[in-house]
Amino acid sequence: MKLIRFGLPGQEKPGVATADGMLDVSAFGEDFGERFFETNGVARLAEWLAANAAACPKVPAAARLGAPFQRPSKIVCIGLNYSDHAAETGAPIPKEPIVFFKSTSALAGPDDNLVIPKNSQKTDWEVELAIVIGKKATYVNEAEALQYVAGYCLHNDYSERAWQMERGGQWVKGKSADTFAPLGPWLATPDEIADVHQLRLWLKVNGKTMQDGNTKNLIFNVPFLVAYLSQFMTLLPGDVISTGTPAGVGLGMNPQVYLQPGDVVELGIDGLGSATQHVVAFQ
Amino acid sequence: MKLIRFGLPGQEKPGVATADGMLDVSAFGEDFGERFFETNGVARLAEWLAANAAACPKVPAAARLGAPFQRPSKIVCIGLNYSDHAAETGAPIPKEPIVFFKSTSALAGPDDNLVIPKNSQKTDWEVELAIVIGKKATYVNEAEALQYVAGYCLHNDYSERAWQMERGGQWVKGKSADTFAPLGPWLATPDEIADVHQLRLWLKVNGKTMQDGNTKNLIFNVPFLVAYLSQFMTLLPGDVISTGTPAGVGLGMNPQVYLQPGDVVELGIDGLGSATQHVVAFQ
Repeated sequence: MKLIRFGLPGQEKPGVATADGMLDVSAFGEDFGERFFETNGVARLAEWLAANAAACPKVPAAARLGAPFQRPSKIVCIGLNYSDHAAETGAPIPKEPIVFFKSTSALAGPDDNLVIPKNSQKTDWEVELAIVIGKKATYVNEAEALQYVAGYCLHNDYSERAWQMERGGQWVKGKSADTFAPLGPWLATPDEIADVHQLRLWLKVNGKTMQDGNTKNLIFNVPFLVAYLSQFMTLLPGDVISTGTPAGVGLGMNPQVYLQPGDVVELGIDGLGSATQHVVAFQ
Repeated sequence: MKLIRFGLPGQEKPGVATADGMLDVSAFGEDFGERFFETNGVARLAEWLAANAAACPKVPAAARLGAPFQRPSKIVCIGLNYSDHAAETGAPIPKEPIVFFKSTSALAGPDDNLVIPKNSQKTDWEVELAIVIGKKATYVNEAEALQYVAGYCLHNDYSERAWQMERGGQWVKGKSADTFAPLGPWLATPDEIADVHQLRLWLKVNGKTMQDGNTKNLIFNVPFLVAYLSQFMTLLPGDVISTGTPAGVGLGMNPQVYLQPGDVVELGIDGLGSATQHVVAFQ
């Protein structure tokens, strides 16, 4: 199943993307959030759809998409998880995952504008595979970790590099501005993805390909990350783990390249759709 | 006003602490969370209490206290914000605030047990003044910052030092275990606190005073922190900013001292009450 949410910011309704278009599943009566996931909502929705899909209204073609789930309790990000990206930033390949948080207030729809924050000089892109947690995970082992995954989606882990790296050592300052976490277009449940470690992911700026990687090159893979993080914190249903970005960010170029108002960022991952973000100045 | 919440974990009810004891304000119909704060809940509750306090049940004396507000969207922490604590950790005094996040799943009641996580060797204490945000704050200036504060409370920013500092550079790994964020006993609204920058804060382990500081020694004070953070991220109603700890943590001792099952941690801040946490092993 592919879960989507549509409508104005803060007023999104739940839907599903099907081969015949997107269906409004508001009549199911639940939005896609912590409670939905922790009560086996995906299976319940599938059952409900079997009986009710024909009566579901179509989502208007012009509808805005929101993130495909409600604001999670946390967005956990993994740093330097592709060796080519570690190399381009001049960092050694990490011995274990580098973990940081992104403010959940950064959450945005997949095609919302990217707003360059006030006083930002170095806003950069990062296409990433995001994992969405399906049930509460504490001290999970790697062999069972995939049972805790509700699905996957596309994420652009926008980053202000000066704030991330030149302002005190902890990265969160450069990761948390509003609109810095566009997620979607959809959350694909695991059955939709043949092999989560064989997905091409790409990103273009103004039509030019900047990133073109594959999740087969993840240093720490999906079950490892879920198990690893669950040793340090409890992962809650609906939580997001963004697995890191391959080479090709603006920071890694010579000279460095950062986003400017008017730029257009497009990105996608096999099976997880694509998104387009127009870059605008803060007003 | 002093807001409290009481009852079993996950089933807390709202209350207020008064000179005559604690009152159950469930009949007000709202828990203390994002929506309560953003809709001027404190003033509405005060008005409601003026008419209804006499009819409110007393909170049973044996009731467990929860954190005095629902799980916030984020717990932002400030590192090395007292010069004596910076010195004891061997770090320079920061030029600007060091910012990190703590997982909100770490939230606990003020007198809940502190659970040492599996495989932890270096669980440490940190008494801190926590700010609770009252309304959405983006690009706030320092002069108006206090208008965005709903109140203050006591926080023990528990930290696993090995995970914080020896496992990849970003501190979040050592700050996010379950029970690592006991908050309360109460949230005091600003009118309850004569001068938030003249509060003694202290912490004892097994009856021995380990920390004894005063918020007058904060390097970056309350309005500065609110304004500063709001340049990097949107602060939402109910969000927590923990302002850093004075000297006297286990990391700073020679030899270092870390918590063991059976230890008892007591802490308090002038006007914000005290809390007691019994240290137990994970089971």
